Amino acid sequence: MKTDPLLLRNVRPWGGAVIDVLIENGRIATIAPNQSTTVAVEDGGGAILLPGLVEAHTHLDKSLWGMGWREHQAGPNLRDKIDTERRLRKEWNIEPHRQSMRQALLSLGHGSTAIRSHVDIDTEVGISGLEGVLQTAELLSGQIEIETVAFPQSGLMSRPGTLDLMEQAMQIGADVVGGLDPCGIDADPKGQLDAVFALAEKYGKPIDIHLHEPGELGAFSMEMILDRTLAHGMQGHVTISHAFCLGMPDRDRARALVARLADARIHIATVATPSRPVPLAEDLRTAGVTLCAGSDGIRDTWGPYGNADMLERAMLLGLRNNLRADPDVEHALWCCTYGGAHVMALKDYGIETGCIADLVLVDAESVTHAVVSHPPRRLVLKEGRVVARDGTALTESP
Amino acid sequence: MKTDPLLLRNVRPWGGAVIDVLIENGRIATIAPNQSTTVAVEDGGGAILLPGLVEAHTHLDKSLWGMGWREHQAGPNLRDKIDTERRLRKEWNIEPHRQSMRQALLSLGHGSTAIRSHVDIDTEVGISGLEGVLQTAELLSGQIEIETVAFPQSGLMSRPGTLDLMEQAMQIGADVVGGLDPCGIDADPKGQLDAVFALAEKYGKPIDIHLHEPGELGAFSMEMILDRTLAHGMQGHVTISHAFCLGMPDRDRARALVARLADARIHIATVATPSRPVPLAEDLRTAGVTLCAGSDGIRDTWGPYGNADMLERAMLLGLRNNLRADPDVEHALWCCTYGGAHVMALKDYGIETGCIADLVLVDAESVTHAVVSHPPRRLVLKEGRVVARDGTALTESP
Repeated sequence: MKTDPLLLRNVRPWGGAVIDVLIENGRIATIAPNQSTTVAVEDGGGAILLPGLVEAHTHLDKSLWGMGWREHQAGPNLRDKIDTERRLRKEWNIEPHRQSMRQALLSLGHGSTAIRSHVDIDTEVGISGLEGVLQTAELLSGQIEIETVAFPQSGLMSRPGTLDLMEQAMQIGADVVGGLDPCGIDADPKGQLDAVFALAEKYGKPIDIHLHEPGELGAFSMEMILDRTLAHGMQGHVTISHAFCLGMPDRDRARALVARLADARIHIATVATPSRPVPLAEDLRTAGVTLCAGSDGIRDTWGPYGNADMLERAMLLGLRNNLRADPDVEHALWCCTYGGAHVMALKDYGIETGCIADLVLVDAESVTHAVVSHPPRRLVLKEGRVVARDGTALTESP
Repeated sequence: MKTDPLLLRNVRPWGGAVIDVLIENGRIATIAPNQSTTVAVEDGGGAILLPGLVEAHTHLDKSLWGMGWREHQAGPNLRDKIDTERRLRKEWNIEPHRQSMRQALLSLGHGSTAIRSHVDIDTEVGISGLEGVLQTAELLSGQIEIETVAFPQSGLMSRPGTLDLMEQAMQIGADVVGGLDPCGIDADPKGQLDAVFALAEKYGKPIDIHLHEPGELGAFSMEMILDRTLAHGMQGHVTISHAFCLGMPDRDRARALVARLADARIHIATVATPSRPVPLAEDLRTAGVTLCAGSDGIRDTWGPYGNADMLERAMLLGLRNNLRADPDVEHALWCCTYGGAHVMALKDYGIETGCIADLVLVDAESVTHAVVSHPPRRLVLKEGRVVARDGTALTESP
């Protein structure tokens, strides 16, 4: 899409000195003070300029956003939540296209310009959820980039027929092969992981596996993922989401796993869940493992929380990891921007000359202040075009 | 203070049916539908009516709110934070009266109508911090109730002269005797706790002790507090703040401690710290121990987080405790309202006929929705008088 040039005046890239940023052809053309121009101008008033926030782990097909308040019905276990969701999806008509439009536009209002969304594939909905989210991705193209993960939420090996549906999902355009808890949900770690890696190899796509399994069980599954990543030459193309096992009490054991992750260039996606053990941001950073972050489900049948604000997620990541010094809190925001961009392999991402102009303006005194206060986003640009203002996407939500 | 009568029309007490609430002489006079009236009317538009939020654990004398962004300087240990704070208090002129005014009015804007604030007493500031906060309490009387805890942050036994200052603090009007980590900070648990309980007995005041000590060390100190609570007949008048030891991995040991707390009617105050073990809301509730909550320090030399919003704190409490069902999330809000009111022994608190009209209006579909979305408070009343509107206190901040 052709976009008109735009001069962002008086902005502070990543909290630095006030400067002007000229955008041409959807990219950052010039970063220099006091630029004179004949093109359209947006005055940033000294606001902080960030690269577009990256929502690297969510479920666009599941949110109840905009459907009126519904009381939580699921029992305490993972299985309860999966089964309750499959039931309510029909009873409540949680329509994936409509709901993904709502959540994606909510995200955009909060300054996310890219989303990786897992989308349920199972023997009840088949690939219809994915079709709905792909329709959203198409409709919102040029406003927000949506990457889809074919996600066998209800089990892959334990629900015959799901693997065929996963294959169909890849054929109609899923970007990533998903998986989950190969022991805890499928009770067939070899079967599931072999299938997931085979599919990824066949379609030349990356992998993103939910791993809720705690402690040694999760470590066992993680080691199987590590082995296959190396065997298939998938270094740099595999993400493990949640990875609760890395929060195990035995820190030496966890750090040894982290070292292997670094070696295999496997990424970690976290929600910074306050009630569960989680991978420690500091351990991953020290080892050179990329950590990205996401909102997970937003106000869905799994729980009532979430608002798709990745600046608030950076705050939760900071709180969960006890990050207090400014450079450490900034690293939490790095995970919610550059970290996610790395995991999604977004090209020319950042706030340097030549980068694609996916940008967010936030009124704050410093980057850490932006994280802890996360005020409504003043302006959001996608490829140089204004797509949201004052916390709200310009495209109306259905 | 005499207040004019006021009719709150179209409000939903604790998320119930739409009704009108007539306030006379600062109290709730009539709760009934479709009341006709000649008095002033505020139309709630179907908003949820809550009792005033209670900020039950904070430090009004320490916030940097409104002082411009300052980079975090403290090292990782508790001692580093205490020593850094004592240094910066002077260097940055963190003036307790001005800063407590700012934070208290911020709280009020978010709907808190009562605050329990610990205030540092030490051999450098003496009781001057307390004098500043007492001045704020006096100035804001009728808008927000501020209870002060004389808090020996830098140590009681280990800093000779502090005990005399604590005594002076009680004489000039501190409401509660404070303490902290009798092992970890003072290395004299018997000395500190005997002194704290003696002071409380002499002045007929309740006790609130910070207990960061983890695991068995914290359990040891907690048992010493339990013994003294029974020996001094202080049941119902002692609060333990943080109580990280109750988050110990040995749940049976923790539950045995909780049973003793219930027996001694000791209350727990929590911040729901995501990075530390914390007392579990469910264990305390089951045992009948009152749990209240607070923001702890807000944007101070200890850390950059916090905004004094007790609805957001209820969300963090829910996230930390993995509360998902609506009644469970409502209990998190109970802790931030009724729980705090119980701990502070607020009289005639609630939304029943005859209660003092400390009330908050929130635009939300349900109580759980109010917690997870925590939108700006539409209206805040203190003793029937409008003191904040649309998220901001009517009294201007210094």
